[in-house]
Amino acid sequence: MAPVITRLQSYSSIEEYDEQIPLGEYLFLRVCQINPRLKSVFGIPGDFNLNLLEHLYADSLLREKGVKFVGLCNELNASYTADGYSKIIQGLSVLITTFGVGELSALNGIAGAFAEYAPVLHIVGTTSTKRADYAKTCGAQGVQNFHHLVQNKNSLMAPNHDVYKPLVEPFSVIQESLTMDGFDNEENLKKIDRVLIKICQENRPGYLFIPCDIPDITVSKARLEEAIITQELAEDDIESKQLVENITDRILDKLYQSSKPSIIGDALVSRFHYDEVFTKFISKLPSNFVKLFTTNMARNIDETLPNFVGTYFGKVSPTTELQKNLEQDTDLLIDFGYLNVETNTAGYTRDYSNIKDYIEIHPDYVFMDNEYIAVKDTATDRRRFSMGDLIQSLNQKLDTTCFINNNKLINNISYKFTPRKWHTDDATIDQCVVPQSKLIDFFNDYLQPNDILMVETCTFLFAVPDLKFPPGVTFLSQSFYGSIGYAIPATLGVSLAEKDLGTNRRIILVQGDGSAQMTVQELSTFLRHDLINPKIFLINNEGYTVERIIKGPTRSYNDIQASWKWTELLKIFGDEHGARHVAATLKNAAELENFRSLPNNDKIELIELIMGKMDAPERFSYISGNKPPVASVPLQ
Amino acid sequence: MAPVITRLQSYSSIEEYDEQIPLGEYLFLRVCQINPRLKSVFGIPGDFNLNLLEHLYADSLLREKGVKFVGLCNELNASYTADGYSKIIQGLSVLITTFGVGELSALNGIAGAFAEYAPVLHIVGTTSTKRADYAKTCGAQGVQNFHHLVQNKNSLMAPNHDVYKPLVEPFSVIQESLTMDGFDNEENLKKIDRVLIKICQENRPGYLFIPCDIPDITVSKARLEEAIITQELAEDDIESKQLVENITDRILDKLYQSSKPSIIGDALVSRFHYDEVFTKFISKLPSNFVKLFTTNMARNIDETLPNFVGTYFGKVSPTTELQKNLEQDTDLLIDFGYLNVETNTAGYTRDYSNIKDYIEIHPDYVFMDNEYIAVKDTATDRRRFSMGDLIQSLNQKLDTTCFINNNKLINNISYKFTPRKWHTDDATIDQCVVPQSKLIDFFNDYLQPNDILMVETCTFLFAVPDLKFPPGVTFLSQSFYGSIGYAIPATLGVSLAEKDLGTNRRIILVQGDGSAQMTVQELSTFLRHDLINPKIFLINNEGYTVERIIKGPTRSYNDIQASWKWTELLKIFGDEHGARHVAATLKNAAELENFRSLPNNDKIELIELIMGKMDAPERFSYISGNKPPVASVPLQ
Repeated sequence: MAPVITRLQSYSSIEEYDEQIPLGEYLFLRVCQINPRLKSVFGIPGDFNLNLLEHLYADSLLREKGVKFVGLCNELNASYTADGYSKIIQGLSVLITTFGVGELSALNGIAGAFAEYAPVLHIVGTTSTKRADYAKTCGAQGVQNFHHLVQNKNSLMAPNHDVYKPLVEPFSVIQESLTMDGFDNEENLKKIDRVLIKICQENRPGYLFIPCDIPDITVSKARLEEAIITQELAEDDIESKQLVENITDRILDKLYQSSKPSIIGDALVSRFHYDEVFTKFISKLPSNFVKLFTTNMARNIDETLPNFVGTYFGKVSPTTELQKNLEQDTDLLIDFGYLNVETNTAGYTRDYSNIKDYIEIHPDYVFMDNEYIAVKDTATDRRRFSMGDLIQSLNQKLDTTCFINNNKLINNISYKFTPRKWHTDDATIDQCVVPQSKLIDFFNDYLQPNDILMVETCTFLFAVPDLKFPPGVTFLSQSFYGSIGYAIPATLGVSLAEKDLGTNRRIILVQGDGSAQMTVQELSTFLRHDLINPKIFLINNEGYTVERIIKGPTRSYNDIQASWKWTELLKIFGDEHGARHVAATLKNAAELENFRSLPNNDKIELIELIMGKMDAPERFSYISGNKPPVASVPLQ
Repeated sequence: MAPVITRLQSYSSIEEYDEQIPLGEYLFLRVCQINPRLKSVFGIPGDFNLNLLEHLYADSLLREKGVKFVGLCNELNASYTADGYSKIIQGLSVLITTFGVGELSALNGIAGAFAEYAPVLHIVGTTSTKRADYAKTCGAQGVQNFHHLVQNKNSLMAPNHDVYKPLVEPFSVIQESLTMDGFDNEENLKKIDRVLIKICQENRPGYLFIPCDIPDITVSKARLEEAIITQELAEDDIESKQLVENITDRILDKLYQSSKPSIIGDALVSRFHYDEVFTKFISKLPSNFVKLFTTNMARNIDETLPNFVGTYFGKVSPTTELQKNLEQDTDLLIDFGYLNVETNTAGYTRDYSNIKDYIEIHPDYVFMDNEYIAVKDTATDRRRFSMGDLIQSLNQKLDTTCFINNNKLINNISYKFTPRKWHTDDATIDQCVVPQSKLIDFFNDYLQPNDILMVETCTFLFAVPDLKFPPGVTFLSQSFYGSIGYAIPATLGVSLAEKDLGTNRRIILVQGDGSAQMTVQELSTFLRHDLINPKIFLINNEGYTVERIIKGPTRSYNDIQASWKWTELLKIFGDEHGARHVAATLKNAAELENFRSLPNNDKIELIELIMGKMDAPERFSYISGNKPPVASVPLQ
């Protein structure tokens, strides 16, 4: 039976606690200190993590803060949910699994979180220290194999209880194992701090391996009374401060001297949560002079700003004029938060050959004057300052009176992207399916300020550059890592985050059918946790259309079980009578044209769109090489 | 568009082929040579494996043989399906994924296949050799990151295209990467043979990494005209043959001299597919003299044989008499195919202290006279002979006239397990739920000869030793690795295997609800591939009852979304009108008592059983330590 932890009082501050508290509770309290916005802890129970989970139920400050366990259907889904949640609460999220079966199932989701910069703390409950110690000393006749742990390949040797640990190294920025060593557990507490800090600084996953007999040991609460610091630029690090100043001056000087400056707000600004300071900075710039661009994976600039030009996406930019406007009509280009991946650069077709001066600002380096200035020391893996420090410094030092052309500022804003109308009525097509072209037009009209738009890796993802966003829209996707199935559970995380934050922005999910089938059970978890938020646009095109266009349009390998009753799913997942959801099927352009919102706006909406099996946005046909290739490096 | 491979003829033999054939086609043809029973190839398409998948559609011998691609909903599920399939076709199965997103999702399923001895060939489609080569030479400014591949932690270094490969090492017996090296591709073909042979010999997973530009290169067909040999004992290896003879003689001599011999048919006999020769051997033994036992994870002896005693499971054997019959009334015990895991030994509570002589036969060694005789050379990782060779030799050399007591053979069979009746009518309980006790009684009556019984890692798994099987029953589970969610997709593999073999045995699945939610979408794949076989008993007990009993009986972490309409699932997955399935809910003991089969026997049956949240077989309460612990090593 569970050792229910009851205390005589509830707590409103750390001071009220006894000097010694259980490690499990300490850990969760520390997590809440590094991310006070966190209220949902994700996971799946397993016999090696139950002892830890139990500490979420203590009559503690955690309850006061509203921190709760959120169970999911499986571990891969849970990892996606933790990823989505972290992106909205803008800080570390927590995923708890059991070792082997659970942690391995989540591995792909963690790899995605690494590739796409989501700060997920993955806590893995492992075998007891006693059992692991036994394995180190037993002889051939004493070999014992316990569930969830693969055997040694040598049948006469004990299993390696650490066998799973090295696997996570390429997908996480730090890994620590708590131990029974040390009389005061100081080392365990230091490890916890190291893991939490590193995850926050890198905005990428980290691991804590916790043997199942560790959460109940007691530790001193003292450290909880010291703040946990994630700031990278130390107060007393004069040298690094001078470096920031020096880079700031050089960048500003170039900006002042430039006659046709362009700025790209790139994806890592958002992934590292510097949107606010970045927006302050660009808003201070002369709005008829410095052109603003964003990228396919960023979309982090207010697109209604007077100097916002559009989404630059190399050779598959929304318009040729937009592409030329950056490539041919810029003398200085500054890319803030460059995310160097194929899906952000249109297969490396950004062409800066006609741009005189280029500055690239990355969390780990600044590239200028043909030189990489290291921000991160690769030996210590520590940054001297954050990208936020640099943007802050630029913002502080910016003096708009210094622009050389200040008195006669030329209006550089000769072009601004406005979405075209893609769809042309064609009676023969429109009767049977919703065309992709119509869907683009629809979303250009449907999106509202402050919406959260999640797009699965599916056909429609390739149309997103053709959308113009109202102010405050947050765009989410897993465009680069591209693990299909991500979006439903990630949207669950987004929805929980909005609920936990109390902001309740409108959430829109565009989802493919093949990808939906990967993780579909998590739709039921929206109901389980009383979420009424997302509007789900489910593209029913009977299979993997993205793959069909690459190869095998009629091959069975690109088919799915296409006869699902999509609009019935939420009924059988727990909302039989539609108390918390509405669903509809839209079968052609006219139906989509007439669609705004289903009758109830305070319910989940599931809108099935019947779409063409070979219909994809024009951009994808280019990228996939089925029209004359435009990318310098082909997709395969 | 797909390069549809059309030829002027179809093929009935390798001889008719041109000298050069595409590598992809060669690979599948070779696979079919090592396992002629294979007809289903499992996987999920992805842009790095489409080129390979395409070769399954060639107008080739493959089509002649009926080999086809079988798509699933996601990769983890697909790995479970391949595992289940391999166990029924008794040979290598094939899983194809795309690297990163796909292969990592499948990793947990492969680890399970390793732990539980399922010979799955996992083929991973990787980036092109060109792209991987580029990454090895580019400088900081040329770093390019492509989808599905995690970035280098050093932002100014190229990604490691081999980053995922080492991860699979602990879970597979061989890993090879095909390359562009070598003018005649001989090395690639040798690698393919090595992988196929090793997988079959070890009955465990192996990996082939195939860059996406490799399947279309042509190779010589010549090797296809040579047989692929998996036999471990070489014809000319006189020394090993003498070793087999020597061990045989020593074992038989002990058996002849014994007065109370007992034999355990253990799990590795079945996992290595030696059931037939083992059965021949034990059937030749005097049936009133040599006692036969099986184990929790084996169940590979005809339980109606006159000398079959029962399922020995240490301190949690079905009856104390059974336990004592082996432990106290045996002078020589021979364990054939010992599977050394906690869930096969009841937490290492097998007690042989009163048994004079013990022989353990394992594929890698024979333990006798307190000495391990190595069968496998750990340096070369090769076996001198197979367990099958040894059993075959025992069978051939057995001379029943040699038993010392031959003329006056004592009847040693003093006890035989007969299942008890577990359920006692109790009006207060029986009205609301189906008790576990009733379910045991039900299955003791319901099972028929030659049934395949798959039991998920769930409460009922702990009742299986209490069942007495009719002859020919195949019992499947993932008792040791215990990854919940395994059973639905694995049963899909079983069902496909039965269809491919044309044997169409009755398949029964006992499934928990929490575990079902992990992989539930694969139910739709039964419909997709026109399978009408399984009878699914779905235990609806509103969560993770196994965990509830260990800890947190009322904690929310052990809850699931419990309001699913289980009996509606197959309707929305594609069989709205019940053409291929029937479903029903049984709510108490009386309803189960009256249940035999739903009206249509040629349809999938889904029988939801409403069961108690804290009801588990008695054995589990012992094992989980909630009754006085019986295991020498506790579960945690």
